[in-house]
Amino acid sequence: MQFASDNAGPAHPAVLEAIARANDGHQRAYGSESALDRVRDRIREIFEAPQAEVHLVGTGTAANSLILGCMAQPWDAIFCSEHAHIEHDEGNAPEFYTGGAKLSIVPAPDGRMSVADLERVIGPEGARSFHNAQAGPISVTQVTETGAVYGLDQLRAIGDLARARGQRVHMDGARFANAVAALGCSPAEMTWKAGVDALSFGGTKNGLLGVEAAVFFEPDLARDFALRRKRGGHLFSKHRFLSAQMEAYLADDLWLDLARRANAAGRMLVEGLRAHEDAEILYPAEANLVFVTLPRATLRRLIEAGADFYVMDGDPMAGDPEARLTARMVCDWSVGEEGVARFLSLLG
Amino acid sequence: MQFASDNAGPAHPAVLEAIARANDGHQRAYGSESALDRVRDRIREIFEAPQAEVHLVGTGTAANSLILGCMAQPWDAIFCSEHAHIEHDEGNAPEFYTGGAKLSIVPAPDGRMSVADLERVIGPEGARSFHNAQAGPISVTQVTETGAVYGLDQLRAIGDLARARGQRVHMDGARFANAVAALGCSPAEMTWKAGVDALSFGGTKNGLLGVEAAVFFEPDLARDFALRRKRGGHLFSKHRFLSAQMEAYLADDLWLDLARRANAAGRMLVEGLRAHEDAEILYPAEANLVFVTLPRATLRRLIEAGADFYVMDGDPMAGDPEARLTARMVCDWSVGEEGVARFLSLLG
Amino acid sequence: MQFASDNAGPAHPAVLEAIARANDGHQRAYGSESALDRVRDRIREIFEAPQAEVHLVGTGTAANSLILGCMAQPWDAIFCSEHAHIEHDEGNAPEFYTGGAKLSIVPAPDGRMSVADLERVIGPEGARSFHNAQAGPISVTQVTETGAVYGLDQLRAIGDLARARGQRVHMDGARFANAVAALGCSPAEMTWKAGVDALSFGGTKNGLLGVEAAVFFEPDLARDFALRRKRGGHLFSKHRFLSAQMEAYLADDLWLDLARRANAAGRMLVEGLRAHEDAEILYPAEANLVFVTLPRATLRRLIEAGADFYVMDGDPMAGDPEARLTARMVCDWSVGEEGVARFLSLLG
Amino acid sequence: MQFASDNAGPAHPAVLEAIARANDGHQRAYGSESALDRVRDRIREIFEAPQAEVHLVGTGTAANSLILGCMAQPWDAIFCSEHAHIEHDEGNAPEFYTGGAKLSIVPAPDGRMSVADLERVIGPEGARSFHNAQAGPISVTQVTETGAVYGLDQLRAIGDLARARGQRVHMDGARFANAVAALGCSPAEMTWKAGVDALSFGGTKNGLLGVEAAVFFEPDLARDFALRRKRGGHLFSKHRFLSAQMEAYLADDLWLDLARRANAAGRMLVEGLRAHEDAEILYPAEANLVFVTLPRATLRRLIEAGADFYVMDGDPMAGDPEARLTARMVCDWSVGEEGVARFLSLLG
Repeated sequence: MQFASDNAGPAHPAVLEAIARANDGHQRAYGSESALDRVRDRIREIFEAPQAEVHLVGTGTAANSLILGCMAQPWDAIFCSEHAHIEHDEGNAPEFYTGGAKLSIVPAPDGRMSVADLERVIGPEGARSFHNAQAGPISVTQVTETGAVYGLDQLRAIGDLARARGQRVHMDGARFANAVAALGCSPAEMTWKAGVDALSFGGTKNGLLGVEAAVFFEPDLARDFALRRKRGGHLFSKHRFLSAQMEAYLADDLWLDLARRANAAGRMLVEGLRAHEDAEILYPAEANLVFVTLPRATLRRLIEAGADFYVMDGDPMAGDPEARLTARMVCDWSVGEEGVARFLSLLG
Repeated sequence: MQFASDNAGPAHPAVLEAIARANDGHQRAYGSESALDRVRDRIREIFEAPQAEVHLVGTGTAANSLILGCMAQPWDAIFCSEHAHIEHDEGNAPEFYTGGAKLSIVPAPDGRMSVADLERVIGPEGARSFHNAQAGPISVTQVTETGAVYGLDQLRAIGDLARARGQRVHMDGARFANAVAALGCSPAEMTWKAGVDALSFGGTKNGLLGVEAAVFFEPDLARDFALRRKRGGHLFSKHRFLSAQMEAYLADDLWLDLARRANAAGRMLVEGLRAHEDAEILYPAEANLVFVTLPRATLRRLIEAGADFYVMDGDPMAGDPEARLTARMVCDWSVGEEGVARFLSLLG
Repeated sequence: MQFASDNAGPAHPAVLEAIARANDGHQRAYGSESALDRVRDRIREIFEAPQAEVHLVGTGTAANSLILGCMAQPWDAIFCSEHAHIEHDEGNAPEFYTGGAKLSIVPAPDGRMSVADLERVIGPEGARSFHNAQAGPISVTQVTETGAVYGLDQLRAIGDLARARGQRVHMDGARFANAVAALGCSPAEMTWKAGVDALSFGGTKNGLLGVEAAVFFEPDLARDFALRRKRGGHLFSKHRFLSAQMEAYLADDLWLDLARRANAAGRMLVEGLRAHEDAEILYPAEANLVFVTLPRATLRRLIEAGADFYVMDGDPMAGDPEARLTARMVCDWSVGEEGVARFLSLLG
Repeated sequence: MQFASDNAGPAHPAVLEAIARANDGHQRAYGSESALDRVRDRIREIFEAPQAEVHLVGTGTAANSLILGCMAQPWDAIFCSEHAHIEHDEGNAPEFYTGGAKLSIVPAPDGRMSVADLERVIGPEGARSFHNAQAGPISVTQVTETGAVYGLDQLRAIGDLARARGQRVHMDGARFANAVAALGCSPAEMTWKAGVDALSFGGTKNGLLGVEAAVFFEPDLARDFALRRKRGGHLFSKHRFLSAQMEAYLADDLWLDLARRANAAGRMLVEGLRAHEDAEILYPAEANLVFVTLPRATLRRLIEAGADFYVMDGDPMAGDPEARLTARMVCDWSVGEEGVARFLSLLG
């Protein structure tokens, strides 16, 4: 009954085995290992993007911030949703890595930015002078932070807007695999075919110990990536252990398989919650996370029975028992039907 | 015959086992795991420093730069040796994490800065006005980048200078374990008792996959560390895998044991080289690395026979065979007497 | 009929005379001139703040950004209104000088932030973890960018909130003189007595060539100001010409006198516009600037007759003549009743 | 007898008159004044560089740092002399404006870097990997900080090296006029014809109140200058007062005329010192500044008689009267033969 975060889940055994296999004597350090070439080839194949530039880093914040550093000038605004992880949960890392770019917030009532809202916040073409932050990249999160998933049409519309304006598109794909599993589309359709220039391709939330890939479909954007990563202290000397994780992740579609498991658990959880009279689902819960309001007494009972999840807006253990609080529940690959079933039975 | 870098060596099996053990279901992320408390306690015990603040990061550049960011203002100069890793091999990460502090280079003919040279470069007290970079921290590397090891007297003298001037001392201890093994002193004697305020306590070069500890003997300096680390993208969500590595490293003095093995190999290598008429040792080789000049023909022969090391100043495979080139050879914990013996037999 | 900006107006003749007087042979550079001591004393007197730290810079963006750099850490959020100059018109300078702090936008329908909105955006105490931007300073603009003026009660309430939360308050006083003239209060009441820790005290918009004072009522905040200013390239060698301007500005209450003239013109302009059936005033116009919507045909007629002002949302010279556009009109000290009268007679 | 700094001297009366003339009613702000177009045309004419991009700022540190920001990436090294103003006297502003580039120091025994030393510090082509700072621009100061002046051959050799390596050349021309006057060459010969890509063209030390021009001979380098300047807070709203100063400076070759006066005084001073048995001139004094060692007693006597200059290495008023101290003496345009003669007569 662990729904606190997909960051709290374990690594998949196949990933640990790959690390053990990689621990084979001496290898030239800093990304010269041959496994990295295989990872690059495999990612290019999966994304049908033979020209893509691929680099590995250890955290999602590093991936997002280093990519945004390649895309945004210090005098730019980066446009992102009011729920964006880069705005709320990365401790000003995007500002740090861009040398002080501004994050301009776009309303996103259900987690997804509309083109109309984006256009309004970006403003008319030519309206920004040297007094203002310049119109920099648009950053979309897929799966969004609310659990909603952009449709391909929505992504394409954002891509078209960016293209028309000469802006770039970054996708924070911390849960990219879950989005692919949810939509059943190809990775290419969800990225470069929709106008995405670079992707933070997440692994940590989906079964790795700590590896994310920065994937640049526009390879010219990656020109300085290696220098930026080194300057950020994110180049691992024993880089083979990153490549090994990612190689195992991509082998036999493990990445998709794990995401499907997580999504299936998420679906089961959402349906169970929806059937409960006291529960109100806040956003379209289309992948492996759900925001739900429940009375404090209910949340407290679940916690006391051993369930774990985040309560966003108050202390579930103290206060008016009938007051409604919002919980975020996330299913990782390992939680399984059994875990969800046990939780739902407790919910009653 | 792998002497390219201690970064190129494998992780110790006990470390991999610890990672596997840590992969046990769900745990709250971002450093809330109980193993971190044990790591902190153990480091405080080893350093006889109950007040020390301890944080884990994934790379040595991150440890150095984040600590220097806590010590130096953007308008400061950081004083370091002409050989310093932070000056030559960290891609301006110290400048990045300090917001643009300057590295002021101190001569260090054998790898160690003298107090006299430090005093000259820092300048007389009160001589720096607001036009100049302010006198910031002193950074010493122990084991130094040349393979020489500061004596405790030398460290204490630098500590005294810093104390008298109101400056801080950082120690880049990427090979700290090798220094402790070389001097046979206590970790406390080499650090806070000698005036060191914060230490980058290396693990990656000595048997881990990728973990370094930032150890602050002056806990007030660590006040913003967690915020700086997050902003740098260096906070791992599945932090338990860092703690597990470090816990295994500290258990049963594995860290010291591995360093002793590396130093023993280093000693054997240096003695073998010293016995060779063509070889000239450049610096006091007191731990596990040695700089040696040899004729190109000799280096080429070694490489062709399968030895691996860095040649600093030219292509060993092409050019005048009698020209002397400088090679850096590093012994990690795994190279063993056998590897060194094989290499020395090749050398002839 | 010049209403484009108070930045577009001339310097007052007394200021030019002071510059000429200051051009008297050699003087030690970089702020060692005795005139600066007089300026400091006079500002401390005017603000009834004997402990205040005072520094001069050449632009308002420099004043705001350097002060915010003293108040905000790189991992902080700075809270400011949706209309704030620091958000819209300073080209990411606040982000630059703070090392990447975030500006968090607070709704301000009429230009002024309410305490309720501030509290909502800042969030409950203790709610921000190391994942989030930390709660940094609040920045208020007085006169606000809309022309509305915070009442003393409103300022005090914001000061109380900040004090309770351990946050600082910065006042962007590019038009501080106009605010004092509008409210008829003392400079002390509008600043430190209301909880303001530091003020950008504007001169350029009100008769100087280009000087603003950074006034720190909390002198400890100014500890690094001189180093930050130098590092920003904002320390003038022939600093005496800045002191001369400011000294003339403060002599005989010229600063207040000029602001009163500007406000009188502003009042006359607003009343004239209000009397016009086609004009709609957008915000409380309480000092020397007004936002007004008028039909394009009217704006065009005024421009063709020689009036100058900014049109915010379209081209006044082309398009539907009946469409309403928004103009910003600003009265500087020099525009005078005559200028306004001529303009209003044109308006008809 | 004012030799402390050319920053301590007065502005030329023609410059003050130009400011007064520019104070003529309202003008659109921020560099839209027509005088700036005239300044640009005149600078292009003087430098025989019709394509040059020209911007004005208020301080020399701003000019140098903003230009270096256009030339250097944050992961670059900037190569400059051991005496460089950007290294010693700009409070880490170059590091700030480049986002953390490193200044790599090149020996310059007499103030001028040799190509051989530059090559040694830059290192062989291809030797820098992503671990190292990348080879960024070379910055030369002309007139150098020691008073020596690079010959055209020396500049061309540096320019050739840079061209061959794909590096850029910046010239800190705080005393550019004095260098042109000293060599009697054309401004074009000293800059773009010798391989200089951008110049900080000084005015403040030579008769202005506070204006320097950033002149880009390679216009593409200036692409982001306006955005960088705004972000640095260096865009003046009442920019006309900067243009007015520079226009007066360039009219009738006032800039060269004032530099010739300063150099003539400098020559007279150097010859007088050289004739004095106790004085030792430290560097080739080829323009308007000279470093000289004299016994403390002599320096003290001069100071007590009203002479003003900087003593670099001790207190001239206290200590062993026979100890030799180093003084820096600078002649600005206003010091005149009379001032020098009076000083020399005191020297005896």
